[in-house]
Amino acid sequence: MKTALSALGRRTAPPPISWLMKTALARPKLISLAAGFTDNATLPVEFSRQLLNGLLRSPKTGRPALQYGTTAGESHLRQLTAAHLQKLDGGHDRAHAPERTIITGGSQQFLYMMIEALCDEGDIVLVEDPTYFVFLSILQSRGIRARGVKLERDGLDLAHLEKILAGLKKSGELRRLKALYLVSYFQNPTGATTTLAKKRAVLKLLKKYERAAGHPIYLIEDAAYRELRFDHGVDVPTSLTLAGAKTRVIYAGTYSKPFATGVRVGFGILPEPVYTAVLRIKGNHDFGTANLLQHLLARALASGVYDRQVAKARKNYARKAAVMKRALAEHFPANVEIWAAGGGLYFWARLPKGISAGVNSEIFHAALKNDVLYVPGELCYADDSSRRKPANEMRISFGNASMNDIRKGIRRLGAVLRKFI
Amino acid sequence: MKTALSALGRRTAPPPISWLMKTALARPKLISLAAGFTDNATLPVEFSRQLLNGLLRSPKTGRPALQYGTTAGESHLRQLTAAHLQKLDGGHDRAHAPERTIITGGSQQFLYMMIEALCDEGDIVLVEDPTYFVFLSILQSRGIRARGVKLERDGLDLAHLEKILAGLKKSGELRRLKALYLVSYFQNPTGATTTLAKKRAVLKLLKKYERAAGHPIYLIEDAAYRELRFDHGVDVPTSLTLAGAKTRVIYAGTYSKPFATGVRVGFGILPEPVYTAVLRIKGNHDFGTANLLQHLLARALASGVYDRQVAKARKNYARKAAVMKRALAEHFPANVEIWAAGGGLYFWARLPKGISAGVNSEIFHAALKNDVLYVPGELCYADDSSRRKPANEMRISFGNASMNDIRKGIRRLGAVLRKFI
Repeated sequence: MKTALSALGRRTAPPPISWLMKTALARPKLISLAAGFTDNATLPVEFSRQLLNGLLRSPKTGRPALQYGTTAGESHLRQLTAAHLQKLDGGHDRAHAPERTIITGGSQQFLYMMIEALCDEGDIVLVEDPTYFVFLSILQSRGIRARGVKLERDGLDLAHLEKILAGLKKSGELRRLKALYLVSYFQNPTGATTTLAKKRAVLKLLKKYERAAGHPIYLIEDAAYRELRFDHGVDVPTSLTLAGAKTRVIYAGTYSKPFATGVRVGFGILPEPVYTAVLRIKGNHDFGTANLLQHLLARALASGVYDRQVAKARKNYARKAAVMKRALAEHFPANVEIWAAGGGLYFWARLPKGISAGVNSEIFHAALKNDVLYVPGELCYADDSSRRKPANEMRISFGNASMNDIRKGIRRLGAVLRKFI
Repeated sequence: MKTALSALGRRTAPPPISWLMKTALARPKLISLAAGFTDNATLPVEFSRQLLNGLLRSPKTGRPALQYGTTAGESHLRQLTAAHLQKLDGGHDRAHAPERTIITGGSQQFLYMMIEALCDEGDIVLVEDPTYFVFLSILQSRGIRARGVKLERDGLDLAHLEKILAGLKKSGELRRLKALYLVSYFQNPTGATTTLAKKRAVLKLLKKYERAAGHPIYLIEDAAYRELRFDHGVDVPTSLTLAGAKTRVIYAGTYSKPFATGVRVGFGILPEPVYTAVLRIKGNHDFGTANLLQHLLARALASGVYDRQVAKARKNYARKAAVMKRALAEHFPANVEIWAAGGGLYFWARLPKGISAGVNSEIFHAALKNDVLYVPGELCYADDSSRRKPANEMRISFGNASMNDIRKGIRRLGAVLRKFI
């Protein structure tokens, strides 16, 4: 008898790093520099306790938090979200609209529903090369084609983007192109941050090709790591501040990473008609994210606790990143190129060309044998037959490991690399 | 320029009762007997405060609750869930397996992902006639065909089910049939409960047609209202207790309705290979439901607080249902047939044939004008061209309205009905 599974059910692949995680569990002494977990010690245990106590102290505030809400999300939280983003964007209010904001179960759920609303099987989405691998998994599961655009340390390679767009026009495939996906701050996996100038140029390029596409081509900005900035650089405004954003920018944000990953609340801001489509889709997914979490976040934002928690997390990540940077300088071979991010959770390491750090490489297996785990960079590249996936890269996270484990882990990794380079 | 939306994005219809809800908001004096909200006054505000305080009192228990978890869900909660169900099912342990359990954002999210895993556009799912309208919305949005099977007060009309199966076999469409969906306890919208004998017969009938289908045909049991029993009848075991359940029964359960609808935690138990497919799909949706809510529920279950809360809710709904029953007897015309449920949140009223209580009926509009809202029964019927949708029915909820509003609302509705019948 055949399986009854749908095409999607049959096609959806296991997450690329699930076996990494299983491996980690099977080796209790293993130091994982792989997971994108946030720092355990910084989690707002006491803050959350106080906020929830305040919320649940009286039936007047407690009952609404324990009852169903609306599909779009709690209206106070949507207002606070728009105001919060406006503030981060220097008071700009071009496209920060509570009425086009939807609260979701983490920004991941938003990304999923938004892709459901936009893309059919066979459609094309442009992504950074490399990019966030769970976004690639969404595309893979739905039979959507991803095309990688070269990533530089300040954002996309614009010439490469234009070349791809021109190529799609020429091949007649532009009508299948729906969007370009940017992880714009301290990117997962490279740590790169896109400048405002590049965001503007990307939006302009997409616009230029819309006529040939016959429909809007959206710029999806995923700002998941935005608030985890710890260098002293200036915050870059979002593409919501650009001219034309109101009709073409889809913004994905989250409170989970900066506040607490166990409190899964994210959000999206989008143009019509995508907003209405996503809202209807969410009506079928869950008709609204858990109200208790939304009320908790609204209290955190309104009381200033959220800002205090973010400041605390930033300080802590600054320290951890500094420890990792020093350890990398000490233990890694000099010909390994390090992208040391000014925020987020990841450093990116490039080995000399021709040396593989991929899933099946000697380096990866030697690292495992020495009880240290990283994410092979190749897992972050789209299946795009127009280029080979580089295998000489590593994503190294300082998010969840302790200072000591960061030092020890990098020392072990360095020893492995010295053996093979 | 055309829209860039996907077929799913274009097709997904607005929820059938969204305008009902908007209408309710626009008339502040309106008594809503429409929403499926649970009782506000019974919500476990103080219980939740105490449990969360306990959880967040120390970093040791607080941090894991505020960190990411696994995609399948917190392992303690999965064990407690299997044990809880086993207990409800009289100790039966045929198919109550933590390793095939997935924790989700309400049972709604589970239903969505499970349908994603099973059904392609054009596939067929059998449903009760009438059934839960948000499940119908999932099917509608994905281009899946629903076929209605006549519902009796003790479950499906088995002769009608067999007739439909035989018809599908004859027309060659059986290979498109993937599942049958039952809301088995105090059904939404009719309040009907399916007997174990009928569950067994349904599973047997589905099995009988599998050979012609060429693949498994699953029995989906949605037990959302199971624990909201308030009559003194005996609890019916789930279809998980039946022979063959392990490979053919997909069970959807929830903690949201019995505990708190603002704490959206549901679960599914399913056979391979559907379990693995749903797990992978959830990896793309959100890679795990908010851990804070899962830890809260695990504490509620382990401490006995959950059972105390459910007992409290049952007592309260028993009182509200009794008030509604008396009011209906007093105010509704005698020729209106009432299905008074022994649990759940809804009564079902059938007007004499030929009299419409539908969305565009005089009765519905007169009710609105008199500030009382119900759900027109026709909204709960699948789009199935093989029969006309009955329009003479009403779903009347006692879940959220106060005792006084129930009395007043039914009096108003009764006055309207007397005018038109």
